[in-house]
Amino acid sequence: MKATHIEHLGIAVANLEESIKYYEEVLGFKCYSIEEVKDQKVKTAFFKVGQTKIELLESTSPDGPIGKFIEKKGQGIHHIAFAVEGLQGALNEVKEKGVRLIDEAPRPGAEGLNIAFLHPKSTHGVLTELCEDPNN
Amino acid sequence: MKATHIEHLGIAVANLEESIKYYEEVLGFKCYSIEEVKDQKVKTAFFKVGQTKIELLESTSPDGPIGKFIEKKGQGIHHIAFAVEGLQGALNEVKEKGVRLIDEAPRPGAEGLNIAFLHPKSTHGVLTELCEDPNN
Repeated sequence: MKATHIEHLGIAVANLEESIKYYEEVLGFKCYSIEEVKDQKVKTAFFKVGQTKIELLESTSPDGPIGKFIEKKGQGIHHIAFAVEGLQGALNEVKEKGVRLIDEAPRPGAEGLNIAFLHPKSTHGVLTELCEDPNN
Repeated sequence: MKATHIEHLGIAVANLEESIKYYEEVLGFKCYSIEEVKDQKVKTAFFKVGQTKIELLESTSPDGPIGKFIEKKGQGIHHIAFAVEGLQGALNEVKEKGVRLIDEAPRPGAEGLNIAFLHPKSTHGVLTELCEDPNN
């Protein structure tokens, strides 16, 4: 698998508006996009720090994945996303090496990327996303 | 505060050797350094992905910060570290804006950096490190 950089970090927050304020006013980053991803039951806000985006995630429903995460673990870093070259090939390769896939094939994610998740039980506890820009 | 990029991500692991194997053989990264940080009671392994390092952290003692983290939350992403220009100034600024500092002044961290941690209770759940390279 060839990962070029960390595309983004997903951070679960209880209140998107308050957290945007913290990331802008305290850390000095600029929110450049707010987007709802309905099938994930989240509202997201994006910032850019060097090569990597920070994606704040607020659950729009207590039974969504972010709602459940916060109930269990509290607010915090939720997942890491690596930009890879050849997403389907990367999925095939890591599966063959024993990784449990949440998504067997790429699906559309935020920001127009194709994405797929690997299960944290097989990635040493880190919910891991692989993604690629279909326009690259 | 002026952060240029994500300097590293700290990931708590139960067994450094097994996790190095996963990051190298499955994800395709190359471990370039293993270091013990005695005052943090950790053994660390470093990888580079684009601009950002991944720092795997294994506790050398159950009562160290990583040992306690794993006991409470399991393996997973432990902290995010931003590279900043002017670490003491950044600490003063975020403190003035209401952030609780774990380190009031920079201290030596891994890889020769000066570092300081912000308390996750005041950073929306994310244990946050600020760091700067004293040689830059």
